[in-house]
Amino acid sequence: MNKLNTKNSEKRILQLKQALDKNLEAVNQEIISRLNKSIPLISDIGKHLINASGKRLRPLLTLAMAAQFNDYSKKPILLAAAVEFIHTATLLHDDVVDESNLRRGKKTANIIWGNEFSVLAGDFLFAQSFELMVETESIEALSCLASASCKITQGEFQQMQIANKPETSQLDYFEVIGKKTAELFGASCKSGVIISGGNIEQQNASYDYGFNLGLAFQIVDDLMDFNNSPNKMGKNLGDDFKLGKTTLPIILAWQKSNPKEKQFWIKTLKELNQEDNDLSIAIDIFNKYNIFNECKKKTEEFISLAINSLEKLPNTEIKNHLIGLANESIERSK
Amino acid sequence: MNKLNTKNSEKRILQLKQALDKNLEAVNQEIISRLNKSIPLISDIGKHLINASGKRLRPLLTLAMAAQFNDYSKKPILLAAAVEFIHTATLLHDDVVDESNLRRGKKTANIIWGNEFSVLAGDFLFAQSFELMVETESIEALSCLASASCKITQGEFQQMQIANKPETSQLDYFEVIGKKTAELFGASCKSGVIISGGNIEQQNASYDYGFNLGLAFQIVDDLMDFNNSPNKMGKNLGDDFKLGKTTLPIILAWQKSNPKEKQFWIKTLKELNQEDNDLSIAIDIFNKYNIFNECKKKTEEFISLAINSLEKLPNTEIKNHLIGLANESIERSK
Repeated sequence: MNKLNTKNSEKRILQLKQALDKNLEAVNQEIISRLNKSIPLISDIGKHLINASGKRLRPLLTLAMAAQFNDYSKKPILLAAAVEFIHTATLLHDDVVDESNLRRGKKTANIIWGNEFSVLAGDFLFAQSFELMVETESIEALSCLASASCKITQGEFQQMQIANKPETSQLDYFEVIGKKTAELFGASCKSGVIISGGNIEQQNASYDYGFNLGLAFQIVDDLMDFNNSPNKMGKNLGDDFKLGKTTLPIILAWQKSNPKEKQFWIKTLKELNQEDNDLSIAIDIFNKYNIFNECKKKTEEFISLAINSLEKLPNTEIKNHLIGLANESIERSK
Repeated sequence: MNKLNTKNSEKRILQLKQALDKNLEAVNQEIISRLNKSIPLISDIGKHLINASGKRLRPLLTLAMAAQFNDYSKKPILLAAAVEFIHTATLLHDDVVDESNLRRGKKTANIIWGNEFSVLAGDFLFAQSFELMVETESIEALSCLASASCKITQGEFQQMQIANKPETSQLDYFEVIGKKTAELFGASCKSGVIISGGNIEQQNASYDYGFNLGLAFQIVDDLMDFNNSPNKMGKNLGDDFKLGKTTLPIILAWQKSNPKEKQFWIKTLKELNQEDNDLSIAIDIFNKYNIFNECKKKTEEFISLAINSLEKLPNTEIKNHLIGLANESIERSK
């Protein structure tokens, strides 16, 4: 089950999307219709973000988990739209907090409309997500996603607190990305099982799948900040580095660095006294200590945990796609 | 019932607080305990805001409405804390959007901690409010407050859209303050009745009370921007004016202004080309056209509607305090 056969896995997300094609389209329609009901400017900002968003990964997880219980009804669709709204709201506020100007190859909303509209549009999407959840009439699903929302903001706070600190422990780092990224992956999955009537064991298993997938996803995202290959996410290369964000490769490199290299990290990340060449120097240090490979191993560990968690869920074709999707996230890092 | 006897009414909010003393203290404890459970920085920002907040008016309304149905249980306390969290979250984000530096006589969080922490702390409080609501297990109360949250952000968007436009119609203005301010007053009341088992007619009556009280409250707040008397809210005098916010006195004055005065409004509010003396000139124009009195009449109309709405609710001592509280809000404007 946990064998990491990545052959042809890059097509798995497409297969999953095809299998859930109608429901995913219904999620898109739900999103557009909610945005259209709001005032025009919110609608514009929302659509900009939603269109810029590529994968619809989180709503796809909600739909897939429901589909494992043969539930293709309206309620998982509402939850999936809610999950995408929460995710989009956090992106809007993240870009304000980070003062970003590019996301997924498009100008960020704060650059086009200004910080004030980005803050308010994020608030609207977040509030709208709860209206969607209310319509499912499931307190349990609401509880699951409200709790994740709390943890996301806590994780973002903690991320700011470990910024410019390459000496951060792995434990602290995993706590941050657990809250900031993995919780919503976990809750997207779990809420799909809750709404479809899965039992507690199945709910927890689906959460574990999503949570571990989320951790792997974030590590791959960390790596892409240093990846010279054509960047599939449209993220600016070195964006995190320029802000002095503490990511896994940096933590691992700091631990192995000699005094001279530590001086470099202090200058470039703690003091943010960066020169043009610093990103290349950082990558050289990563290569010297084989850091990318170490990160990849960590990713594989989490993917393995994610796939193992699926054992407690029904054996369906959708489950095969979920296994493939997990394997695919390692492919992203290559 | 709707006679506006304001004699001794300034003590009404105190009477209401005394009548609900234990429950209000339980709300405070709930708020502090939730903040303490979060990470220290969020806790600090939250406490700064919560301590700066004076009246606890919205949670008081929730508790009062529940008390009318003799419900002094845990659930209205949870909802009241949720309402205060929503309100506090909007204040945090408002101050980021407005770039304010003073609220209720204290430095704003964005000045002390920076915009990024204010955005995230607002998000946390908002998410936490939904966790509190979930604990009441009432989808109806959740729905009521989720809907209000959506409208608040829409109202804030629309407020930005009518900024620097003294030619705004009263209708547009009332739509904005209805969403931005009055909705949460209405929902604070209605959710209290919902959770205590009041029927639909009573739910709607309590909403009408809160909504109209909220409209009156906002007009009084508008007036206080121009009020030279010691400012009970600790708001900076002329703050709204400096931003070119479109408030009721400005809309009414614009409609009556002669061409020369209109030129003044265009220069100072549309073009934000303000000189030191402009606030005094604005106040002179208000006095010339008796604008403050006209605003006060509008306030009285809404208070009258609010008080009339209470007829459908049980006759209790709490109801007398609610009538007094409504009358008191006119006193604030004197």
